[in-house]
Amino acid sequence: MERSLKEHFEQTLQEVSIDCAIFGFHAGELKILLLRWKGTDGWSLPGGRIYKEESTDDAANRILKERTGLTDIFLQQYYTFGNANRLTHLSKQDLMELLELALGKDYFHDKINRRVVSIGYFALVEFDQVQATADWYTDEFRWWEIPDVPKLLFDHNEMVVRALHALRQQIRNQPVGYNLLPEKFTMPELQRLYETILDKQFDRRNFQKLLVSYDILEKLDEKRTGGANKSPFLYRFNKSKYEKAMIDGVSFAM
Amino acid sequence: MERSLKEHFEQTLQEVSIDCAIFGFHAGELKILLLRWKGTDGWSLPGGRIYKEESTDDAANRILKERTGLTDIFLQQYYTFGNANRLTHLSKQDLMELLELALGKDYFHDKINRRVVSIGYFALVEFDQVQATADWYTDEFRWWEIPDVPKLLFDHNEMVVRALHALRQQIRNQPVGYNLLPEKFTMPELQRLYETILDKQFDRRNFQKLLVSYDILEKLDEKRTGGANKSPFLYRFNKSKYEKAMIDGVSFAM
Repeated sequence: MERSLKEHFEQTLQEVSIDCAIFGFHAGELKILLLRWKGTDGWSLPGGRIYKEESTDDAANRILKERTGLTDIFLQQYYTFGNANRLTHLSKQDLMELLELALGKDYFHDKINRRVVSIGYFALVEFDQVQATADWYTDEFRWWEIPDVPKLLFDHNEMVVRALHALRQQIRNQPVGYNLLPEKFTMPELQRLYETILDKQFDRRNFQKLLVSYDILEKLDEKRTGGANKSPFLYRFNKSKYEKAMIDGVSFAM
Repeated sequence: MERSLKEHFEQTLQEVSIDCAIFGFHAGELKILLLRWKGTDGWSLPGGRIYKEESTDDAANRILKERTGLTDIFLQQYYTFGNANRLTHLSKQDLMELLELALGKDYFHDKINRRVVSIGYFALVEFDQVQATADWYTDEFRWWEIPDVPKLLFDHNEMVVRALHALRQQIRNQPVGYNLLPEKFTMPELQRLYETILDKQFDRRNFQKLLVSYDILEKLDEKRTGGANKSPFLYRFNKSKYEKAMIDGVSFAM
């Protein structure tokens, strides 16, 4: 591993990195994927470096795959973190120890504490359908509920805050739900998705009226039965209209 | 200048740069500020490098000031351009010539054709109130109407497209107009601002109803007189409500 790690650092950009905020939704819960650095108590977002011949988008997908095993996730750039002191809340000593514990190497000591700008990417996935697997410098992966996110390494708490803001901004401008709900779903399930991500409650009638106005839903001639309440009608997304709305945008004004 | 230029290149990041898309609005026209590189026909956005001890936000403001003379402009990051080939539509020869003509130096020939990621910032200003002044490697500044923007250097046409998209996204989520309209303005003037930026026509009644619903306007007991048409009422922004709406967001759904 030593050789390939050395090569990796030589073949990648020195001043730019990538960090990924992966939000997971399942059954009315919103979580975020964090990793714990090998041999340490330090948690961070999954991140990594960009090869010199690689676009930042390609790098983001490769990094996420290498570090977590996750593939086919639609990552979107949301913000680039460029404070001059973003790596310096850790002392140089602590940063060296962290890297030694996680990477077990010392040949880049002279390079640490550099100025690194990090490009933030985010995604929203169904966390029940993805299985993160730790790489060789990660001890553990965990989906954290947003309010429970601990003090993270570097400026990663700020990254989580900004990524969550970007996610919420996106849901206000584009439809959401296609890969997060079962094929057929009820209006209360769709409402719960919006309420969970936006951390807000909405009026049932107004929500239904607004979502119907997007013209992306097909009301089916079926009801969800078996629940304690009045059986609600099932809906599904009209895929072509949904995709058009992803491009044209919608306006979630509630 | 040779010495300071050399120092500048040594003291700045090598793999990250900044480019600024400055949109100007005045009297129903939307334009963008472009500069022509000294001794060449090549136009680009104003851009530059980041000092190692400087945040990217500070760098963006400094670069804009140094290159154009513009100060106190609220720049916002909108996208980071990271294609591996973003500088390679010019041949190495052409790029060298361009830099020689503009910079008159050859000591960084060995460094050109590098991989550089560029952070895009944008702003919207009242272009009648700002006076751009060319720096020492710019021959000319010009406010261009958006449809007339020529083929630009590097990937700057893509930057203009994405910046315009970001501007339009912003106007759909935050109020606009505070520094772009006179203190007292008519509803048709406000509508014209939105129509110009979004390049769309809106129904007069619906526009008024929506903007009034934001609760950021004060209708004055005065009318604009002297025009050929029925004298329209004057409005002004309630600054504290406007600023609150900038933070909380609004939803321009038309």
